[in-house]
Amino acid sequence: MTQVAKPQIKNDRFLKALRREPVDRTPIWMMRQAGRYLPEYRETRAKAGDFMSLCKNAELACEVTMQPIRRYGFDAAILFSDILTIPDAMGLGLHFVQGEGPQFTHPVRQLADIQALPELTAEVDLDYVMRAVSTIKQALNQEIPLIGFTGSPWTLACYMVNGSGSKDGFARVQRMAYEQLEAMQLLLAKLVDAVSDYLLAQVAAGADALQIFDTWGGLLSYEDYLSLSLNPMRLIVERVKAEYPEIPIIVFTKGGGVWLEEMADIGCDGLGLDWTVHLGQARERVGSQVALQGNLSPVILNAPTSVVEAKTKAVLDQFGAHPGHIFNLGHGITPKIDPEHVRVMVETVKNYRATPSV
Amino acid sequence: MTQVAKPQIKNDRFLKALRREPVDRTPIWMMRQAGRYLPEYRETRAKAGDFMSLCKNAELACEVTMQPIRRYGFDAAILFSDILTIPDAMGLGLHFVQGEGPQFTHPVRQLADIQALPELTAEVDLDYVMRAVSTIKQALNQEIPLIGFTGSPWTLACYMVNGSGSKDGFARVQRMAYEQLEAMQLLLAKLVDAVSDYLLAQVAAGADALQIFDTWGGLLSYEDYLSLSLNPMRLIVERVKAEYPEIPIIVFTKGGGVWLEEMADIGCDGLGLDWTVHLGQARERVGSQVALQGNLSPVILNAPTSVVEAKTKAVLDQFGAHPGHIFNLGHGITPKIDPEHVRVMVETVKNYRATPSV
Repeated sequence: MTQVAKPQIKNDRFLKALRREPVDRTPIWMMRQAGRYLPEYRETRAKAGDFMSLCKNAELACEVTMQPIRRYGFDAAILFSDILTIPDAMGLGLHFVQGEGPQFTHPVRQLADIQALPELTAEVDLDYVMRAVSTIKQALNQEIPLIGFTGSPWTLACYMVNGSGSKDGFARVQRMAYEQLEAMQLLLAKLVDAVSDYLLAQVAAGADALQIFDTWGGLLSYEDYLSLSLNPMRLIVERVKAEYPEIPIIVFTKGGGVWLEEMADIGCDGLGLDWTVHLGQARERVGSQVALQGNLSPVILNAPTSVVEAKTKAVLDQFGAHPGHIFNLGHGITPKIDPEHVRVMVETVKNYRATPSV
Repeated sequence: MTQVAKPQIKNDRFLKALRREPVDRTPIWMMRQAGRYLPEYRETRAKAGDFMSLCKNAELACEVTMQPIRRYGFDAAILFSDILTIPDAMGLGLHFVQGEGPQFTHPVRQLADIQALPELTAEVDLDYVMRAVSTIKQALNQEIPLIGFTGSPWTLACYMVNGSGSKDGFARVQRMAYEQLEAMQLLLAKLVDAVSDYLLAQVAAGADALQIFDTWGGLLSYEDYLSLSLNPMRLIVERVKAEYPEIPIIVFTKGGGVWLEEMADIGCDGLGLDWTVHLGQARERVGSQVALQGNLSPVILNAPTSVVEAKTKAVLDQFGAHPGHIFNLGHGITPKIDPEHVRVMVETVKNYRATPSV
């Protein structure tokens, strides 16, 4: 167990909320806060060329990470990177097709493909990510914490097996779990190893907290979610906590609102919630076992600012005046949002206080 | 209130389960049971020409409705039709584009479009549906009950406003609810009228039970689900129950697993569940207030038959040996399923008994 005496972070609302400690106001950050809705991001992105070139350039990745912090004063920064860096480093050939999303040149479909996947050493094989983490950490100057992240093993497996996004709920990948169970189990085991190592390296490079993005766990049945998605995440949380017990971990399964009790039980510190969940009901279900993060619908940021303000207050009121809430969207912000609408959301969170409830 | 003394239906397991009465075994039917996975369906469909021509031909619609009944001995038949018949009858110009799904030539985007929508009289404007209902009812010969159905107002609104399916969670339609609330409310009010009238006409034509398909309610936030989707469905249930209190109504919101308590409270008799929900947990949450219908993942029907059998038993075991379960898939069957796999599922439901639990 590595106990690192980290220097104090000045604004520690986010970390305190993750520990369910009282804070002066609800902390806020936003999934995909460094993104195409910001003109300054689009400018930097144009300089870098394609998306992965931006991820692989530590200075530019740092610049886009800092842009929304400077503009809005978020309470946490998040590493600028992609969830598919691990399969890319394994040699699957990640590329982005305009309007189609991520694709892999070499998807894995057979046991032999999976057996052939190389074991990664994150510091070496994903050194560009670690350089970005340490560059951002330095730029943040201990003002706010830095969140490192990864895709969940199941979510990575979805893209690795399918080779791209899916219109049919990654049916091919779900079929693999039924038809080639040994292959799927080996793939998930290899991804548990790779993801754990990746997160440990991010902490070593400076990350103050971690989030696991389980974008596609919500496609699964209850039983399959437990075995294919939640259990691999549990193993990762255990491995990271064994090394860094003080580093908080947030688990976000989109569409996982029915399984909060099970998710709260894997040893993580916070749960990310999509917008379908009533925050007050969620808090009643999991108590103070974990912090809750979310959950304004990204669609609402398109609405008139009066609606943005009202719906932001409604999210705060749903959770109520209890410790353990981190304001966020229920999913990543979309490219066409007016940045001024984001400002209204941020200012509302900073200025509004939910009424204390019993 | 119209009290019709309906002649007794021979196999009334489905209706009994909806009343939470004991049955000798769990009844089973399957969403989209008349569909492309059946070679006999594809043959009849080819005769009819396009999909809507099949819906509009009462004899052929009856034939495809009966095909899965003859093949598998399901415990209920469901009207063969489309969820978008109402907007089509309103003049929006429904058509199907290969690989793209349903589209409307004249989507409604402004208050004036919605004000101009005609008021329908289902017996006249959707007479082909009523002819199909009475033709099927006669063919069924009181052997099993006939389920009528509709799309929910919100789901119909999604297609009517967007003009087609959506890759972005019908963001345009959600925006309309924020930017043009009056227009959205008028659209939903008109759809409550049209859907209520449509369901009442289906019962008058012979339907023994009704299902409301709320395919897109699960896209909404908690508050928006209540106001845009659930409340319109509540009004429909009230209107149908005022005329036909004995006709059971099933509400199926795909992705609505977090809201079961709220759904159970609108006066319906059963809830359709998608595959993400643990049936036993769902039963604990809603008690015997409603029957529960579901929820094998359609993807599982692709798996080897040993898996189909095991997962079918797991669904039955999750619910346990209580009254009030109707076996179904968690969503419609997909076109490429081997019909023999469906047989394994059906035979397993017919022969397996869940262990009584406390």
